Amino acid sequence: MKINLPELDKKRVVVIGGGFAGIALVKKLADKNYQVVLIDRNNYHQFQPLFYQVAMAGLEPSSIVFPLRKLFRKKANTFIRMTEVEGIDPAKKQLLTQLGIVNYDYLVLATGAETNFFGNAQIAEKAIPMKSVSEALYLRNHILADYEKSLSIEDYEERQSYLDIVVVGGGPTGVEVAGSLAEMKKYILPKDYPELQIEEVDIYLIEGNNELLTGMSDSASRKALQFLTDLDVKIMLGKRVTGYDGKQVTLNDGMTIAAKKVIWAAGITGKAPVGLSADCKGPGGRILVDRHSKVKGYEDIFAIGDIALMTDENTSKGHPQLAQVAMQQGKNLAENFIRMDGGKALKPFKYRDLGSMATIGRNRAVVDLPHIKFQGAFAWFVWLFVHLFSILGVKNKVFVFLNWLWGYFTYDQSLRLIIRPKLNKVDMSSDNTPIPK
Amino acid sequence: MKINLPELDKKRVVVIGGGFAGIALVKKLADKNYQVVLIDRNNYHQFQPLFYQVAMAGLEPSSIVFPLRKLFRKKANTFIRMTEVEGIDPAKKQLLTQLGIVNYDYLVLATGAETNFFGNAQIAEKAIPMKSVSEALYLRNHILADYEKSLSIEDYEERQSYLDIVVVGGGPTGVEVAGSLAEMKKYILPKDYPELQIEEVDIYLIEGNNELLTGMSDSASRKALQFLTDLDVKIMLGKRVTGYDGKQVTLNDGMTIAAKKVIWAAGITGKAPVGLSADCKGPGGRILVDRHSKVKGYEDIFAIGDIALMTDENTSKGHPQLAQVAMQQGKNLAENFIRMDGGKALKPFKYRDLGSMATIGRNRAVVDLPHIKFQGAFAWFVWLFVHLFSILGVKNKVFVFLNWLWGYFTYDQSLRLIIRPKLNKVDMSSDNTPIPK
Repeated sequence: MKINLPELDKKRVVVIGGGFAGIALVKKLADKNYQVVLIDRNNYHQFQPLFYQVAMAGLEPSSIVFPLRKLFRKKANTFIRMTEVEGIDPAKKQLLTQLGIVNYDYLVLATGAETNFFGNAQIAEKAIPMKSVSEALYLRNHILADYEKSLSIEDYEERQSYLDIVVVGGGPTGVEVAGSLAEMKKYILPKDYPELQIEEVDIYLIEGNNELLTGMSDSASRKALQFLTDLDVKIMLGKRVTGYDGKQVTLNDGMTIAAKKVIWAAGITGKAPVGLSADCKGPGGRILVDRHSKVKGYEDIFAIGDIALMTDENTSKGHPQLAQVAMQQGKNLAENFIRMDGGKALKPFKYRDLGSMATIGRNRAVVDLPHIKFQGAFAWFVWLFVHLFSILGVKNKVFVFLNWLWGYFTYDQSLRLIIRPKLNKVDMSSDNTPIPK
Repeated sequence: MKINLPELDKKRVVVIGGGFAGIALVKKLADKNYQVVLIDRNNYHQFQPLFYQVAMAGLEPSSIVFPLRKLFRKKANTFIRMTEVEGIDPAKKQLLTQLGIVNYDYLVLATGAETNFFGNAQIAEKAIPMKSVSEALYLRNHILADYEKSLSIEDYEERQSYLDIVVVGGGPTGVEVAGSLAEMKKYILPKDYPELQIEEVDIYLIEGNNELLTGMSDSASRKALQFLTDLDVKIMLGKRVTGYDGKQVTLNDGMTIAAKKVIWAAGITGKAPVGLSADCKGPGGRILVDRHSKVKGYEDIFAIGDIALMTDENTSKGHPQLAQVAMQQGKNLAENFIRMDGGKALKPFKYRDLGSMATIGRNRAVVDLPHIKFQGAFAWFVWLFVHLFSILGVKNKVFVFLNWLWGYFTYDQSLRLIIRPKLNKVDMSSDNTPIPK
């Protein structure tokens, strides 16, 4: 069955994924001489850098996601389909989805990356990833439900396991999560749970390298370590998690930590749809592309963002898997499509590194710009400003800003609610199925 | 196993339910000479009158609910436990919960009411109720997912069933839901779904009586009917739904409507915990109480709000099941507890009717006050003001106000996101279970 789409007298570009890369591409291409079909499993674009604030009850999911239909509302050539991709048939130039088949003239993979559990099925089953707002909300609900439950547990050891949280991975996500958990412990728990012994709550951060924020400067790494130590996070460097059974974390040196919640931010791996030849598969689940984002071995398939592995004179391991790279590649590919339509020569991609940053907590952030690196309160304001500026939608900006302002002055996150959409009925599970993931 | 609670040198009042009645009681009693234990299945208080706006993507759930812990933060004698009640053992003065047993000196039932499907198991299984924010969110997700799906359905009849929505019950909830669905059809769908034929979308409102808003004045009923007719809602008065199999609604006159979504707002029934004697059970699932809210046949069990059936010289059928009654009964009972502690005589409850109102849409509402009745734009502003004023929490008031302001000027609800907290993993269902409903 074919998916229901008008056949226009234009070449059809099918884009899989409405993340940073996909959105940047479609935005530029939406009213040009192509029919653009954007396919995503969700009906919204997600602003990944703030997932951790959703998990920590600081922001509502709705403030950091944006409906795709609203984004491309007035673009008559752009069509959105919410569905799950099942595979590609490059010979027939067809994309297979749960809604049916889509023919394409050009296919763009902007599918991003998913959590990497490094092949450990046990960890994959029990640890909590944070690569979608849905997962962030799930984590929030679990943290809050476990605090509630801990009040009724008299056994010290068992109560510990409900209170302690282990964060695995000392990159930006891990550092930001650990920092805000520590702040929740410091500012919120004593007020909301006067019955809890606050010393019983421990936040662990485990990182395989001997420093935090490996991709950033030495001064940023050192300062992040100091900020987190000040916030009383138990940091373990040079250690790896080798097992987790849902109750107990095991490290490579044999140490164990009892915890019902392990947040897994230890790495990502590309998620390419099935159907591509083995020749184009690179390390880390990424897809090999040339400097025009064209997938190796194909003339009509492109890949941009986290899923793409593009090497050039500066990088043999590919660009870092960051929003900046994704957006720039999306824009570059859109320009090249426009050039193709006009019969002009393509422009190779060139990455412009704008710097990177991470926040640890209130007045504590680290910023690496190309020519200057700084940390502390000013860095924190820069971080806030840059992220506020990057969120899609004026209303979202206003609401995030107000939430931050409120939180800053009240020391209170205030969204500590365990809300799940559901019917209080037996048939809930079957009723839930029709909604695509 | 006993629930973990400190044994204070005070009488213990256990309150089941953090709705309007329970909150009004606990607020007044929280720092008095009692140990107050508040039990709710959720960790928040919900503002029922605005559930329909959550369902219609106009407000976030977090804006209309308030964390119980935050509400009673500085009250040292007040303890909150999030758990499900399993029953009462009046002889032992014990409440049985999923967390364990709680002894009480006084027990207060403020458990409210649940959706009444009038014994029709098929309707109970397939129709969507709206008695919690979780159900409202579920409804929102289904409406949006069905619009997405309808784009891929070529068969006219089948597509109809995804687009049409049937609302059952012409009370305030039914009228408000039908009104905002009609506005969504008018203002949002043409912009978000230019591919849809908007004439194909039908909103039905079915009511068993021969008028809408039966509890209100004639002028309010007539005007509500006119407002909804203006908004192109297909209203059927004097008809009852006799069956719904998930695809087709059957009415008592044999008529059928194909619809994947039936919103059930046709009635409520009290939900009392098991363990009470049959003597105290009244009609509508309600519990018979005297004018001190004391349950018939018990000296230490009380009931307030929707669950209670209190008759007096003005009403043989009991007070209407409204937030106003619930709050006034909660307050009255708290005062009586304080009087009991001081050895004073109890004060019988007296209901003060402050009026009632319902909103149909933008600039369209009906208001019945004790001495004046009015409808239209001014009524709508009164409705907005009264509801804004009633929502718990300054931040919630600010955010709801800003949302309304935004919606008023942009004609856009903007929260059209299908977000569900979950892990994209196989074990999701088992991982979900630990959180109490």
